[in-house]
Amino acid sequence: MDNLFPGKRKLYEGKAKVVFPGDNPGEVYMVFKDTATALNGLKKGTIEDKGRLNAEISDILFRLLEKRGVRTHYLSKVNETTLRVKELRILPVEVVVRNVVAGSLAKRSGREEGTPLPRPILELYFKCDELGDPVWNDEHVLAFGAMSEEELTEVKEMAHKVNGILREFFGERGLELIDLKLEFGRAMTYGSAGEEVLGPIVLGDEISPDTCRFWDKDTQEKLDKDRFRRDLGAVREAYVEVLRRISN
Amino acid sequence: MDNLFPGKRKLYEGKAKVVFPGDNPGEVYMVFKDTATALNGLKKGTIEDKGRLNAEISDILFRLLEKRGVRTHYLSKVNETTLRVKELRILPVEVVVRNVVAGSLAKRSGREEGTPLPRPILELYFKCDELGDPVWNDEHVLAFGAMSEEELTEVKEMAHKVNGILREFFGERGLELIDLKLEFGRAMTYGSAGEEVLGPIVLGDEISPDTCRFWDKDTQEKLDKDRFRRDLGAVREAYVEVLRRISN
Repeated sequence: MDNLFPGKRKLYEGKAKVVFPGDNPGEVYMVFKDTATALNGLKKGTIEDKGRLNAEISDILFRLLEKRGVRTHYLSKVNETTLRVKELRILPVEVVVRNVVAGSLAKRSGREEGTPLPRPILELYFKCDELGDPVWNDEHVLAFGAMSEEELTEVKEMAHKVNGILREFFGERGLELIDLKLEFGRAMTYGSAGEEVLGPIVLGDEISPDTCRFWDKDTQEKLDKDRFRRDLGAVREAYVEVLRRISN
Repeated sequence: MDNLFPGKRKLYEGKAKVVFPGDNPGEVYMVFKDTATALNGLKKGTIEDKGRLNAEISDILFRLLEKRGVRTHYLSKVNETTLRVKELRILPVEVVVRNVVAGSLAKRSGREEGTPLPRPILELYFKCDELGDPVWNDEHVLAFGAMSEEELTEVKEMAHKVNGILREFFGERGLELIDLKLEFGRAMTYGSAGEEVLGPIVLGDEISPDTCRFWDKDTQEKLDKDRFRRDLGAVREAYVEVLRRISN
């Protein structure tokens, strides 16, 4: 990434990505890193090659979604670890869609991991590291002004649509999409006097084994960040396998 | 309570109440205890006279709600610590209505205790001691079959109505209703062959300083179980004060 952005000021550095200013107004560069965190930052590590793998996986999936009519922040892939994307005013609510019980839902439902859900469940989390991304419901989102009612409705519809498209896509490739975490934002454009103009809601962030759970349909093997979270080994191999499955 | 139910088999014993079989089908006796627990049972203690005070407070409030058209399980007060109520098939979801930020919502929102909400927020918790009553949203309730969509809609409407009535009632008595926890169930009746017949949804459980937060409107003094949870002292006095305010 240093080659592409020598000495350039970062706009933002997160746990798994760095964002640099773009070359056009309303655009930024999103550089994927090899670093990984889990358990709200308590567990830290590096997954070799993860930046490259997640950039490539996200590239494929964002292009798929765009082709299927989902508005995303995706513009192009710039190099191995970098996507050019629209600049977003991120909505401070993470949306999780679940098809099968796993992770925190196992603890919050008393159902075993792997229990299929009769229909996808959508959950909302307030995006706030200091509070550990707490669970919210629709009423918190509206009462605290994190989204308008119209935004919330649109985000939910988009989340279900994204889940439907990806679940089918992965299913055809022998992978079960257990759950996925999505972030949305409003695309930012600039008026003639340089003033910010908020555009439509688009899907942001990344779509990768960092943000989704994938299980092999035949073996039930986990092929996602749970291998890192739970010290299951063969972490890089899982990301490589996901990329291999979706690369044709 | 030993006088009223000598040697009688308990139907159920909870943290703050014991339920005994009633003298008619579809009725039970609910006896209020002095024991108190907090922090999911980690903190235990006794609040002198609490059983009597909460039975009397609940008696007043259930009668108020019935008069205002809310269906409840209330039938009559039998003695100092005992209410005669309808037998319920309890719906396994606790409903919390919040008017002002307090308790767990302060932690989950990053807002200070005492922050007024622009409108009441309704939260759902899966009633399950082993899991620590985890937060659910509508979709968990429906996907896991805890309630039907019609039941959920009705319960939410009833919860908002109860909150509205009680908030006004306490407000007129110098107490701010910060939040309250409600439980609902279907009244059970029995057919001619003794078979169970589920009746309409009614408000169950108790309404007391154990299940609501009350703050004095002028002094902001807490007059509820937070005095026990947080070791603020004068616990019994707070319950006495709440009863005094609503007794005229």
